[in-house]
Amino acid sequence: MFSPSIVRLIREFQKLPGVGEKTAVRFVLQMLRSEPREARALAEALVQVVEKIRPCSLCFQFTEREVCEICSSPRRNSKLLCVVEDQPSLLAVEKTQAFFGQYHVLGGHLAPMEGIGPEDLHLRELVERVRNQGVEEAILATNPDVEGEATALYVKRLLAPLGVTLTRIARGVPMGGDLEYSDALTLGRALEGRNAF
Amino acid sequence: MFSPSIVRLIREFQKLPGVGEKTAVRFVLQMLRSEPREARALAEALVQVVEKIRPCSLCFQFTEREVCEICSSPRRNSKLLCVVEDQPSLLAVEKTQAFFGQYHVLGGHLAPMEGIGPEDLHLRELVERVRNQGVEEAILATNPDVEGEATALYVKRLLAPLGVTLTRIARGVPMGGDLEYSDALTLGRALEGRNAF
Repeated sequence: MFSPSIVRLIREFQKLPGVGEKTAVRFVLQMLRSEPREARALAEALVQVVEKIRPCSLCFQFTEREVCEICSSPRRNSKLLCVVEDQPSLLAVEKTQAFFGQYHVLGGHLAPMEGIGPEDLHLRELVERVRNQGVEEAILATNPDVEGEATALYVKRLLAPLGVTLTRIARGVPMGGDLEYSDALTLGRALEGRNAF
Repeated sequence: MFSPSIVRLIREFQKLPGVGEKTAVRFVLQMLRSEPREARALAEALVQVVEKIRPCSLCFQFTEREVCEICSSPRRNSKLLCVVEDQPSLLAVEKTQAFFGQYHVLGGHLAPMEGIGPEDLHLRELVERVRNQGVEEAILATNPDVEGEATALYVKRLLAPLGVTLTRIARGVPMGGDLEYSDALTLGRALEGRNAF
């Protein structure tokens, strides 16, 4: 039904997360309806990202520099480190505008069943960094799921001997939520982690 | 928060239909996580489409050839023409596997308020084609909305003097639907267009 070059572009668009065939076809039709420079601009932007973006040599977040904007900013506290699994987590924390330290992106979580062990994460670099920068507090902000909790425990054991204060983001009922609709695991965790009021 | 080349790619992705900032960021993060060849493959496919695809010189659907696969197929009835507004409509009709004639893509619908007049659609070419091919029936398959109906009426007036049989796709209650949830306009149209049974 489609020409080969259109089929090819549909297949490529379908590799994007959450994009099925119907959406991919819509993307391609829009491209065909627009000026050719639109498609060329997207193509050029893709190539540029691949060529320019690399992991920060300190925290491993994506950047165009050797050392990223956050790691090289004098306004960010290098004694306070937020350890996250990946870039989306870093962005989520950054969006709170409530964190002024630096990050360390592990590059995933421990998942022995999928063959992801400690050597696959940036853990060696984390230990080095905590030592070299004289980090005082490391906030473990891995995801609140089985793998994230296991990874946080592993990092805790790894950093404890260095004498750094280790904290974990609070797990509890989400703001704006309703206890009636909270799952038992979350509500249990919220009770366990109750604060003086 | 992002490097310039990442911001640029996010902006480009956001131009795709239905893609907001959040989705665009997800697309970019996936690109950064994948092998560089993935981004390059998408970029290359985009450029190829822009370079190879052109409107068919007969029916104006997108194709890599001078005359598209459908128009040049000996298995398609050139005396039966389905007139559609755009490529998505053509695809929808083609998916029924119930049409074996050829198409004519108008390239939109009449919309005087938006400044889209008859000269902006492939109407002159339609008249020529009906004459040259000796078309016997033209099915007006413009959308069942105000602009589509107006466009169908205009095409009817244009083709009537050529002695071609003019038909319009049936408008009525959709299959699998429930009369209770049909809007009055659709149900009214279904009553008006009732068939012998």
